[in-house]
Amino acid sequence: MYQVDLNSDMGESFGVYQLGGDAEVIQYVTSANVACGFHAGDPMVMDKTVKLAKQNGVAVGAHPGYPDLQGFGRRKMVLSPQEIKNDMKYQIGALWAFVKSEGRKLQHVAPHGALGNLCQYDREVSRAICEAVYEIDPSVMIFYCAGSVLGEEAEKLGLTAKAEIFADRAYMDDLSLVPRSVDGAMITDEEFAIARCVRMIKEGKVTALSGRELNIKGDTLCVHGDGPKALSFVKKIRETFEKEGILITNFQ
Amino acid sequence: MYQVDLNSDMGESFGVYQLGGDAEVIQYVTSANVACGFHAGDPMVMDKTVKLAKQNGVAVGAHPGYPDLQGFGRRKMVLSPQEIKNDMKYQIGALWAFVKSEGRKLQHVAPHGALGNLCQYDREVSRAICEAVYEIDPSVMIFYCAGSVLGEEAEKLGLTAKAEIFADRAYMDDLSLVPRSVDGAMITDEEFAIARCVRMIKEGKVTALSGRELNIKGDTLCVHGDGPKALSFVKKIRETFEKEGILITNFQ
Amino acid sequence: MYQVDLNSDMGESFGVYQLGGDAEVIQYVTSANVACGFHAGDPMVMDKTVKLAKQNGVAVGAHPGYPDLQGFGRRKMVLSPQEIKNDMKYQIGALWAFVKSEGRKLQHVAPHGALGNLCQYDREVSRAICEAVYEIDPSVMIFYCAGSVLGEEAEKLGLTAKAEIFADRAYMDDLSLVPRSVDGAMITDEEFAIARCVRMIKEGKVTALSGRELNIKGDTLCVHGDGPKALSFVKKIRETFEKEGILITNFQ
Amino acid sequence: MYQVDLNSDMGESFGVYQLGGDAEVIQYVTSANVACGFHAGDPMVMDKTVKLAKQNGVAVGAHPGYPDLQGFGRRKMVLSPQEIKNDMKYQIGALWAFVKSEGRKLQHVAPHGALGNLCQYDREVSRAICEAVYEIDPSVMIFYCAGSVLGEEAEKLGLTAKAEIFADRAYMDDLSLVPRSVDGAMITDEEFAIARCVRMIKEGKVTALSGRELNIKGDTLCVHGDGPKALSFVKKIRETFEKEGILITNFQ
Repeated sequence: MYQVDLNSDMGESFGVYQLGGDAEVIQYVTSANVACGFHAGDPMVMDKTVKLAKQNGVAVGAHPGYPDLQGFGRRKMVLSPQEIKNDMKYQIGALWAFVKSEGRKLQHVAPHGALGNLCQYDREVSRAICEAVYEIDPSVMIFYCAGSVLGEEAEKLGLTAKAEIFADRAYMDDLSLVPRSVDGAMITDEEFAIARCVRMIKEGKVTALSGRELNIKGDTLCVHGDGPKALSFVKKIRETFEKEGILITNFQ
Repeated sequence: MYQVDLNSDMGESFGVYQLGGDAEVIQYVTSANVACGFHAGDPMVMDKTVKLAKQNGVAVGAHPGYPDLQGFGRRKMVLSPQEIKNDMKYQIGALWAFVKSEGRKLQHVAPHGALGNLCQYDREVSRAICEAVYEIDPSVMIFYCAGSVLGEEAEKLGLTAKAEIFADRAYMDDLSLVPRSVDGAMITDEEFAIARCVRMIKEGKVTALSGRELNIKGDTLCVHGDGPKALSFVKKIRETFEKEGILITNFQ
Repeated sequence: MYQVDLNSDMGESFGVYQLGGDAEVIQYVTSANVACGFHAGDPMVMDKTVKLAKQNGVAVGAHPGYPDLQGFGRRKMVLSPQEIKNDMKYQIGALWAFVKSEGRKLQHVAPHGALGNLCQYDREVSRAICEAVYEIDPSVMIFYCAGSVLGEEAEKLGLTAKAEIFADRAYMDDLSLVPRSVDGAMITDEEFAIARCVRMIKEGKVTALSGRELNIKGDTLCVHGDGPKALSFVKKIRETFEKEGILITNFQ
Repeated sequence: MYQVDLNSDMGESFGVYQLGGDAEVIQYVTSANVACGFHAGDPMVMDKTVKLAKQNGVAVGAHPGYPDLQGFGRRKMVLSPQEIKNDMKYQIGALWAFVKSEGRKLQHVAPHGALGNLCQYDREVSRAICEAVYEIDPSVMIFYCAGSVLGEEAEKLGLTAKAEIFADRAYMDDLSLVPRSVDGAMITDEEFAIARCVRMIKEGKVTALSGRELNIKGDTLCVHGDGPKALSFVKKIRETFEKEGILITNFQ
């Protein structure tokens, strides 16, 4: 029996600014990565998102990022490991308050944007993130991009690490994501994208942009929550996975 | 036997900006009200302050405020009760992460500045603050200014409420603090201030600025942490309390 | 000959967050109130908006607000007149840099949101705003809500003040806007709204929500920029004004 | 006849947080680099600092930095040239409003912290900064660290560029500053530091940390404003320069 978690970034609105179709997408995923107020989100949005997750039986994870709302956490900042560790604790704790208020448990932590990208190779940053999680609660999982050192650092500390794969993003030979600026970075053919997901989950294989065959582990599949296309895409994923005998479930 | 907690606001530095003599004052108090990043404090400062409290056996409480670093939380903002409640949860949770990392428990929540002042009479705001605490963890206490409705709202919800009194601030007839702009607001004669504290704790009485005798309850005494004078003042308080048979202890 | 300026709030996006249909609405107005980064807007958005205004021959004004992005400047903050004055200077100057870069002149200043509402009766705040403008450049105009003391304070200082009226908002007997929470606050019948605008401009009269006839002066008419309805509404306003012999022009 | 400008970073307080002894140091310098609210400073501080500069006949320059108050602009952020350009315009304009209010002219722009460090070699960033200045007002000067490409980019655009030297910082062979973490980075012997300044100004020579002799141009000498030592140091500089026939004057 195969199984996979479906996750999506959520709670990225801020004040009057609306982003993403959370209320709809959440009906089709099993885990939510919730922004924690640094790169996106605010206390009102976090409260609403955590309640929405509860209503839909969706597990909640923290999606902490750089303290850069204007750049949406996509602009690299050179912070010390100690600064990153404390920024993580702050954001994870802030989200925890909303999760605890709903009588639920924080499932995981998945770093956002440029900070997440750093975790491909940066062991010091990865370690800082894992230490923050470990010191708060070692039963909280780490979501890491398949192939990144973040997963290794998490396991070294004794944390449970789950490998995240992407339905619509092409891979380089080292399993890093092809930068969005490069041709072919986004996989736009939905049928192909879904077949590729099935293969990653069942066979543990994916073809890189270069044509090379790579081994990949996929515990949780990231789907995006913007626009009507995203919604129909995640519905198709669910239908296909059902036919293929892939159980969609989170880790709680 | 009489007893009282000695508390002080701490962790109000931010980035390169240093405020207060935390490392010294903390040696003489039993509870710390730690800023949570909205009106003051940042993740690095919070981490340092919580560790300092642990080293000194001082209980940690959250000192949440308005999201207004520039105004140090001293400028009133008209927020909805729902906004206040969620702003409280966010800040309390953020601090909790650092407290939990040190294997300790959050003792209390004490609202800061203009938000704290609102709690003198505003039941809706007081209730919002108490609900935030209650929903996160009903074993966390509320520190309220003696005479304010915050204490009543806390108890209505079933929270433990501790009355805070001030060593160096004069009282109006309704037990609100005399505004700093009014003559006589600050009690500068140290001997008199300390004798007044002893009377509040032992007899439950204080003389208002008007000369009127008031009943007052004092579970925790707030001392300020700035300057060499503050330090000698808190030392004298300790000496006097010892002679007077007043045990200085927190609520943990 | 009658004439009126058509203004709209613009540049209220922030980072990845999009708000309003500036690129379309700007084709139909003559003045833009551009957010300055405190309640909305950021340097990238301001640059883009000022360039858009230039391309469309639209005059640029500053739309400064409270330092509260999360509340979109709609939450009252109790700031001192000196704080308001300096917050205004900061924002006006910041926008000025983009206007000057395009070889243009700042036409006006129109306070936003809760700060703008305060100017209905608060002479001290109104004066602080006018002094900021006067000290920077006394040739910059003030846009004030018809009936508010802001216009009087502007004229006392020797500034040119232009009265702003609203196409879709009902009036109280004192010419303040009916709060959005009250039934009848928004005028949703487009035909009626436009006929009412024509009457305000040509006859200087408007019927309050109470039924009372009021005198009103309308130099500049505010139209909103959100949604497809807003766009068709402003087009109808233009058509009707043309037929009615009302020239639509800004003050430059 | 030799001459040099003495500059110091100023207006780096924020809200209740005080930094630097501006009121004293300003009596001994001829130019002030005033923080613009991104890495430090706020509208109240900017107003106060610009007035202080006026009272002391000190020329005002903008000291713009990264939008990172928590990191004091010392943490590198990866921003696009367009983002840097607009962030510069915003900050320069904001300060301009206070300078214009006092009837004065903005003398120069000197980038702060990690952004300033980037200008040692990064032509794209340097160009973005210079374009911002040029588009606002080409008569405003650029202060660049002697040896950095910022000066070259400024001159390419037709801006006046002034080379800044440091009294208490050792140089690498490429004229970049020795990082603070390296032994010998700070020159602590005051006599030696001042003699070295005189040599830089009169002979255009300085000895690098490596012992190598370098050519250097020094139009403006940066002195720090913190602590009583700083004050006595700048007084000694003034005395020595007077004896050495070096006129201390700004560029206005």
